[in-house]
Amino acid sequence: MNKLYIIKIGGNVLDDASALSTFLKDFASIREPKVLIHGGGKIATKIGDQLGIESNYINGRRITDSETLDLVTMVYGGLVNKQIVASLQQLGCNALGVTGADGNLIKAVKRPVKDINYGFVGDIRPEDVSTALLHFLLKQNTTPVFAPLTHANGKMLNTNADTIASVLAVALSKHFDVRLIFCFEKKGVLHDVNKSDSVIHHLHRKLYEEYLTKGIFVNGILPKLENAFSAIDAGVKEVLIGQAEYLLKNTGHETMGTLITK
Amino acid sequence: MNKLYIIKIGGNVLDDASALSTFLKDFASIREPKVLIHGGGKIATKIGDQLGIESNYINGRRITDSETLDLVTMVYGGLVNKQIVASLQQLGCNALGVTGADGNLIKAVKRPVKDINYGFVGDIRPEDVSTALLHFLLKQNTTPVFAPLTHANGKMLNTNADTIASVLAVALSKHFDVRLIFCFEKKGVLHDVNKSDSVIHHLHRKLYEEYLTKGIFVNGILPKLENAFSAIDAGVKEVLIGQAEYLLKNTGHETMGTLITK
Repeated sequence: MNKLYIIKIGGNVLDDASALSTFLKDFASIREPKVLIHGGGKIATKIGDQLGIESNYINGRRITDSETLDLVTMVYGGLVNKQIVASLQQLGCNALGVTGADGNLIKAVKRPVKDINYGFVGDIRPEDVSTALLHFLLKQNTTPVFAPLTHANGKMLNTNADTIASVLAVALSKHFDVRLIFCFEKKGVLHDVNKSDSVIHHLHRKLYEEYLTKGIFVNGILPKLENAFSAIDAGVKEVLIGQAEYLLKNTGHETMGTLITK
Repeated sequence: MNKLYIIKIGGNVLDDASALSTFLKDFASIREPKVLIHGGGKIATKIGDQLGIESNYINGRRITDSETLDLVTMVYGGLVNKQIVASLQQLGCNALGVTGADGNLIKAVKRPVKDINYGFVGDIRPEDVSTALLHFLLKQNTTPVFAPLTHANGKMLNTNADTIASVLAVALSKHFDVRLIFCFEKKGVLHDVNKSDSVIHHLHRKLYEEYLTKGIFVNGILPKLENAFSAIDAGVKEVLIGQAEYLLKNTGHETMGTLITK
C-alpha cells in the first residue's frame, strides 16, 4: 500500500505566522499523498470577542451555541482554511479546503444532550467518512485541507480537530499505510514532564502499559496516547507526536518526536 | 453533449431565509449536472459593521483592503458557503463548497492599479479555470458551490460572482451544453422598466441590437446583457435571466425569464 501522511496542526502553529509559514513549506515538500487538519487557534476567540460573542465553558469544555457555530464556521471554514489553501497553492501544493459537509466527506451525529448540552457539536466515527472522494483527490495529487467542522441534518457542527484526524486516519488505513502526525507544543511524549528533551522515541503497546503502571505519563498526554493507540488498534500503521518543526523535516526517521506503533 | 446548469444567486435570494430555502429545494431537484455560484448578500456588510471594518467605495465600487479581504474570506468562503452546502446535503444534493483557490480551480490576477487601487480583487479568464477537477466532480454527481473568491500568489482575492459564473460557463462549454442562469430581483429583461411583467422572453443578437438602437434597455440591465452575449459568443449555449423562484421550476421551458441565445 502507498504511504499517506495525515497531519494535524493546532494553535501553537496557527497562531504564529512564522511557525505556520515554515510548517506549510515543510508540508508542501512532502511528496507522498497527504491530508492536513487544522484547528482554529486563538483567531476564533479574538474575532468572537470583537463580535461580542461570549465563550461559554462547562467543566472546561467549550459550548457551541448558535452564535458560536456561525463564528467557527466563518473562522475555521473560511478565514483559516482559505488562507492555508492559498499559501499551499503558492508553494506548489494543490490544496483543496473542505469541511465534513463538503462532498459529504464526514457525516456526524449531533452530540446527544445528557448531563451537559454541548450545543452544535458533531460526533463522528470512521465509518462516517466518504473515502471514495478522498481517495480520488489524493490520486490526483490534490491535498485535502480539513477545517474542524462536520455536518448533520442541514447544520454545520463543531468537531474536535484531533478526532477528525484520527477518524480520517482509521478510515483511510484501508487504502493506505497511514502515518498520523499530531503536532503539539512539546518535542514528544516525555519520560519526565519537567525535562523537555526527555522524549520517548518509540512507544508500543507493551511499553506503554509498562510506563502506565509506573505512572510516567501525566494527565495532559494521556488522552493523546489513548487516541493514538486506538487509531493503531483500528489499522493506522504509525502515529507520530511532537513539534511541527522537527516532525516534517524527518518523515522517514524515528529519531524525532514519539513514534507509536503496534 | 450533456446539459450543465450554472446558476448564480445574489443578495435577493441570500438575504431572505425563506427565498433561499425555496431556491435550494428547487436547485437540489435539478437532475442534471449543476454548479452554484453565490454572492455574499448583506451578511458581509452586517458582520463588517460589527467588527468596525469600514466599507470603502470609489466611484460606487467597493475597495477590498486587507481587513475587508479577511471579512469576505470568512463570510463568503466560510459562513455563507458552508450553510448552503449543509442545507444542500440535507436535500440530497452532494454539494462541495469551494473558492477559486481550492484545487486551484480559478487562478486570478490581482487587478493592476491604474487610476484606482481596488485592493485585493482578482480578475479572471476562462482559460484560468481548471476544468478537469470540475468535470470529474460533476461526473460523480457532486455539485460544486462557489464562493466569490479566487487567488493569486498565496493570497485570496475578492471576485465578482457574476464574473465567476460567466467564466465557469465559458470554460465548461467545451464539455457541456451550458445553460447559464443569473437570478436577480426582476422577472427578466423588461420591454418597459416600469412594467414588471413586460418580460422579453427571448433575445438573440439581432433582436438585441435592434432593441439597443431603439433605446429599450436601461442602464442597470446593460452590463448583464453584454456579459450574457459575450458568454454566448464564447460558446455558452443559453443564458437565462430572471427571478430564482420562476427560473428553476421551469428549466425545460422558455416561458419564464429572458432566454438569451445566439
